[in-house]
Amino acid sequence: MDRSAIWQGVITADDEARYAAAGFGQPVGAGRRPALLVIDVQYRTVGTRPAPFFEAVKEFPTSCGAAGWAAVDNIGHVLRAFRQAGFPVLYPHVAPKLRTDAGRLGSKIPGIMDVPEAGYRFVEDVAPIEGDVLLPKKHPSAFFGTPLVSHLVDLGIDTLVITGCTTSGCVRASAVDAFAYNFRVVIPHDAVYDRSQTVHKVNLFDLAQKYADVVDTAEAVDLVHAMAGASAAAPVREQQ
Amino acid sequence: MDRSAIWQGVITADDEARYAAAGFGQPVGAGRRPALLVIDVQYRTVGTRPAPFFEAVKEFPTSCGAAGWAAVDNIGHVLRAFRQAGFPVLYPHVAPKLRTDAGRLGSKIPGIMDVPEAGYRFVEDVAPIEGDVLLPKKHPSAFFGTPLVSHLVDLGIDTLVITGCTTSGCVRASAVDAFAYNFRVVIPHDAVYDRSQTVHKVNLFDLAQKYADVVDTAEAVDLVHAMAGASAAAPVREQQ
Amino acid sequence: MDRSAIWQGVITADDEARYAAAGFGQPVGAGRRPALLVIDVQYRTVGTRPAPFFEAVKEFPTSCGAAGWAAVDNIGHVLRAFRQAGFPVLYPHVAPKLRTDAGRLGSKIPGIMDVPEAGYRFVEDVAPIEGDVLLPKKHPSAFFGTPLVSHLVDLGIDTLVITGCTTSGCVRASAVDAFAYNFRVVIPHDAVYDRSQTVHKVNLFDLAQKYADVVDTAEAVDLVHAMAGASAAAPVREQQ
Amino acid sequence: MDRSAIWQGVITADDEARYAAAGFGQPVGAGRRPALLVIDVQYRTVGTRPAPFFEAVKEFPTSCGAAGWAAVDNIGHVLRAFRQAGFPVLYPHVAPKLRTDAGRLGSKIPGIMDVPEAGYRFVEDVAPIEGDVLLPKKHPSAFFGTPLVSHLVDLGIDTLVITGCTTSGCVRASAVDAFAYNFRVVIPHDAVYDRSQTVHKVNLFDLAQKYADVVDTAEAVDLVHAMAGASAAAPVREQQ
Repeated sequence: MDRSAIWQGVITADDEARYAAAGFGQPVGAGRRPALLVIDVQYRTVGTRPAPFFEAVKEFPTSCGAAGWAAVDNIGHVLRAFRQAGFPVLYPHVAPKLRTDAGRLGSKIPGIMDVPEAGYRFVEDVAPIEGDVLLPKKHPSAFFGTPLVSHLVDLGIDTLVITGCTTSGCVRASAVDAFAYNFRVVIPHDAVYDRSQTVHKVNLFDLAQKYADVVDTAEAVDLVHAMAGASAAAPVREQQ
Repeated sequence: MDRSAIWQGVITADDEARYAAAGFGQPVGAGRRPALLVIDVQYRTVGTRPAPFFEAVKEFPTSCGAAGWAAVDNIGHVLRAFRQAGFPVLYPHVAPKLRTDAGRLGSKIPGIMDVPEAGYRFVEDVAPIEGDVLLPKKHPSAFFGTPLVSHLVDLGIDTLVITGCTTSGCVRASAVDAFAYNFRVVIPHDAVYDRSQTVHKVNLFDLAQKYADVVDTAEAVDLVHAMAGASAAAPVREQQ
Repeated sequence: MDRSAIWQGVITADDEARYAAAGFGQPVGAGRRPALLVIDVQYRTVGTRPAPFFEAVKEFPTSCGAAGWAAVDNIGHVLRAFRQAGFPVLYPHVAPKLRTDAGRLGSKIPGIMDVPEAGYRFVEDVAPIEGDVLLPKKHPSAFFGTPLVSHLVDLGIDTLVITGCTTSGCVRASAVDAFAYNFRVVIPHDAVYDRSQTVHKVNLFDLAQKYADVVDTAEAVDLVHAMAGASAAAPVREQQ
Repeated sequence: MDRSAIWQGVITADDEARYAAAGFGQPVGAGRRPALLVIDVQYRTVGTRPAPFFEAVKEFPTSCGAAGWAAVDNIGHVLRAFRQAGFPVLYPHVAPKLRTDAGRLGSKIPGIMDVPEAGYRFVEDVAPIEGDVLLPKKHPSAFFGTPLVSHLVDLGIDTLVITGCTTSGCVRASAVDAFAYNFRVVIPHDAVYDRSQTVHKVNLFDLAQKYADVVDTAEAVDLVHAMAGASAAAPVREQQ
């Protein structure tokens, strides 16, 4: 995959040259035991059916519209690879907002406090099943104020494949924390989504330069299969 | 200040319309007792003297060059306002890298491990003085793996003014965490810096839409003076 | 109150002399704006009615029995003082255990995984009301893997009164974290409870020497009234 | 080893019966890849030479005296097993206190702020060598405000052997956090130390019932040898 195509039209050749001159953006590589994060893939972020952005936003102010539904298809491919391999799947997600949750979020984006309850349901196509880990969260990062690290230590995870939304919001915040914890982070660029293409592209560029291996869905699926094969050949660690 | 001017030429009218339609980007407003974060303003991020980027990067791979020096002037203005008011100043900064610090950072940006020791010195113009809090850190966010929150609770802080670099790296990661902790975050756009203008601008847009009040240095200074005045009239809390 | 009476019969005069010689155990003092933590006061920790320990433990393995009910009365006194003053009340509590929650807890105390759902209900006498903050937690400390600090920053809290159970478990772990975050910690010794008096007493001694001001319920109530009076005279900070 | 002997004379048969009735204290068992924490083994906690407690405390108020030196011998045995196996060793330790570090610690134990610099040196017999990880900390737990978890994830650790001091202070706080992160915790009771035997014993009882496998030094050494053998037979993960 030509990575430059991902952020084409926004990131310039000069921008890329600067990061290259500074030596950023080397591949991290996958580890041995991955977990999948499906972040905030709830109807509030895609709408109850695909619609252009400015229409979708009328249903839920937090909706990314049709761009989200395209990513959901790709998340489905990655998810099936994880389920087939028996690798863990975790769902950090937004819990219905209470008055006491407002804080700075309520000041910055007041409309986010009033999303109807139906918006909080998981998108059916990629919804959790028995045995997955559900992590309600109040803040952008899937790690912030949640026991996510404890689950990852318990499961012996060294690699996180991150999908969902938004690229510039909860996905990026989670990837930065995952990187800081020294997990290997893989982000399929077409399985994450945002409300603006400019923002989506630049955030993928930032992630690729500093925090994660940015790939496409097909590459992510291959990676999961490869780790599953290696794991079958020499099991790293039985689950608890 | 016309905020749109900050990200002009990268963020389009359509991008702005999308965030407006979703109700993002409302002002958070300042609190009563601010602290200043001066993040990573060490010679490794600006070079020992102002130079164009592609020259600067030869001295230190992490250097942002002349753009950094322009921001340092503005940081000086904000810093003097804090010192004059007697409000706390904290310096999250990068400690010299040891072999055991490599982790994912060493995979992603190998050159970052070999910055000469001189690069770790604080830029003299805005260097810490006796009584400031120094916070060596190993990861992007000033909060990650440091006792920053403990200092802020001890000092009764409700507002953080964040300066330094890089906009897309440690500044953004720190702002996202500060927001998640429910501190009010103020970022003077001309007192933070990065190696690419595209990336700098889009990150300021993201910060303004979701996490912080993005202002200019003059506005930040006025804000500090206003909080100092209110605090003198009705002291909120004596320091320990 | 003679504090030595609290741990009498277990902590010796020699023990006390050692801590005195080392200069431990000075009072921290209260701040200006307190919050109350009511930790794990669910039927699983006291039983559905007062009973001697070895009987109570048959209903729920996690029950402390009659000792718990005595403390619940005192928690009621503290709680009413908080409600009257309009100070915030937060309920860190144990959520029903799922298979994926086992981890090291499931290895160490297997029976804790199978407490019937009825055990997770809040004890009616001191149950949360609309506007209180509920914090489900998976680990001992009320801070670990929860957004508790974010709520405390949002509410401008500088002092925590900690009640509930167990003294040696979640209460102590929460007090140690609160101390590390630089909150002022007050623990009414008769409003926290445990399954063994020896353990209860020594943990209160440890808390008093190193992390908290250990008082009795009457003193805690007086403290809340005093802070309420000071706050009415000069309001520190309006709630968001 | 008869574990009851460890807390004999303080913990009663009735105390033990209560925890047994509740099903606490099951063994966690070791994992595959351990790290050793040597916590606060600096001259400030043992004195520059073995002396009875009330004499030792005159040199440094934080000294545990001769009891500390006895434990240091045992830490040496565990440390040599780790070095021989090539397993990682980390040194969470107290950095010299600055005025800005006071916070609640300075209120509770004022004398702790004035320990002479010589007290902060590592005890020579078990001092760190090139390649060990040094973690300066400001608060009791080795995890609080430090990047310890990031190192453990990077090193693929699933088991922590915890040694040093004090049993009721930094050792316990670190063990509780390690347990919450789902690491397997092993504590050699004779390689941790405190200023009072009552407190030392009850804290070991609490740790054994709820958070850790409490063993003796010989058992800890055997465990390390066993993990080294298993690891040589089937290497779990190469170091980065």
